[in-house]
Amino acid sequence: MNTTIRLALLQSRGYDLPSEAISATEEQIAEAAGQGAQIICTQELFLSKYFCRTQDTDNFDLAEPIPGPTSLHFQKTAKKHGVVLILSLFERRAPGLFHNSAVIIDADGEILGKYRKMHIPQDPGFEEKFYFTPGDLGFGAFDCAFGRIGVTICWDQWYPEAARLCALSGANIIFCPTAIGRLEIESEALGEQQRQAWLNVQKGHAVANACYYAAVNRVGAEEQINFWGSSFVSDFYGCEIAMAGKHETEILYADCDLQALEQHRRIWPFFRDRRIDAYTGITKRFDD
Amino acid sequence: MNTTIRLALLQSRGYDLPSEAISATEEQIAEAAGQGAQIICTQELFLSKYFCRTQDTDNFDLAEPIPGPTSLHFQKTAKKHGVVLILSLFERRAPGLFHNSAVIIDADGEILGKYRKMHIPQDPGFEEKFYFTPGDLGFGAFDCAFGRIGVTICWDQWYPEAARLCALSGANIIFCPTAIGRLEIESEALGEQQRQAWLNVQKGHAVANACYYAAVNRVGAEEQINFWGSSFVSDFYGCEIAMAGKHETEILYADCDLQALEQHRRIWPFFRDRRIDAYTGITKRFDD
Repeated sequence: MNTTIRLALLQSRGYDLPSEAISATEEQIAEAAGQGAQIICTQELFLSKYFCRTQDTDNFDLAEPIPGPTSLHFQKTAKKHGVVLILSLFERRAPGLFHNSAVIIDADGEILGKYRKMHIPQDPGFEEKFYFTPGDLGFGAFDCAFGRIGVTICWDQWYPEAARLCALSGANIIFCPTAIGRLEIESEALGEQQRQAWLNVQKGHAVANACYYAAVNRVGAEEQINFWGSSFVSDFYGCEIAMAGKHETEILYADCDLQALEQHRRIWPFFRDRRIDAYTGITKRFDD
Repeated sequence: MNTTIRLALLQSRGYDLPSEAISATEEQIAEAAGQGAQIICTQELFLSKYFCRTQDTDNFDLAEPIPGPTSLHFQKTAKKHGVVLILSLFERRAPGLFHNSAVIIDADGEILGKYRKMHIPQDPGFEEKFYFTPGDLGFGAFDCAFGRIGVTICWDQWYPEAARLCALSGANIIFCPTAIGRLEIESEALGEQQRQAWLNVQKGHAVANACYYAAVNRVGAEEQINFWGSSFVSDFYGCEIAMAGKHETEILYADCDLQALEQHRRIWPFFRDRRIDAYTGITKRFDD
């Protein structure tokens, strides 16, 4: 039994037109599949520029249902190449009710599930609370053709609870499509500190949960934001087994060895010793 | 108001006799206080060699009550120098009931509180479940003369829940006395991966909780274990603001800026967006 899974992360710039994004992504998927990739994940909201830079009701036109046109399109792509696809989409659920979601399409072209971003940021240039209702599907894992995987989205990446709940649902690989960068008004030094924080917290999730962790970010400047790329895959030691550049569109590949993960968890069995009798405070806002 | 707190971490080898450890630690505390240190923390079980290498009932002779002789001794030291001390001790509670504990002594010499290690490891060379009953005091924070601090011990460091609960109790700095190293039978390459994992997971706690994090490890070889030192203090970006060597006894200093922490949390307010309605799964063993 082959216990190694090849991932491909599609790090890309933002496109003006969804049709451009779709055809570019189609090409990336074909290339990745040709390289043996089995699970392929896009960056966050890959169909468009990062429109949350401002609060504008016209941007709701970019949303679509899931299932909907884009997921239907890529279901055929997944089946054609026999790959699992994780697509980050702007989901229209009802008038005035929208989510920042990911659809997981299995290698046979069937929709395996959907994840709705649970933690929503709001700060200048990342005006997401204007657009997205916080997710109501919770955290979990999906049994795809190649293994059990978890999916979180962007701001979720700062929350150990999100990664933990994916891992407690059996995820051996956690994916996180994201759109993060430095604001033009911020110094490059601060931007680098933020990028390091972003790497460190996610590597921490990989270690604490003894799983592989894959973050997919966009690149390029979009008005006041310089997206910093740096998509990466971390092993369960928090070591980057693959790391993309900061500026260019690229496909990042990584091989995840589930047998090695099994062995690692036998000698460092963090789940064995969790003090579930003492964690109820986690469900409180603050202890004051 | 001075919002910068100077920490001193006492990285040391293990001693054969408690009396040696006490006098060496006394000297380190005097030196650190002379350098302006305000909160001083020892490595785990600093009074002795790491006796958990084997399972031997004679080792229970090393334990003492808290309060007890060692805490009484260092209460005078704390008062003399006007410093806060975090001491990791082997606690005798009753015959057959022992804990791996830390006592927190305030700058006026009063005992501020006690923490009992909640997560207990058990693997070859780290036979802690033989010695230590898991803690029953929970996770929390202590208001010392210089700020609100959290304390965890060693194996706790792998658990995001432990750091989170300290932070949700208001800790701005989390301390973690530890005793971790590479087994002689393991390769140096594996040892380095483990050390990186140890650094990464704790830096992750610092980022996720937007706090300072201080880990204090021992150095030196004790039979089959090579302790890897590397005591460090991380800021809330997961960047090491101070890092000790791998082999030598040393005092590691770091200045923690609580005003910078306040500003950081204003722009990255992770606590604002926690989905406490969706975290109950954290209190479960596994979702199966």
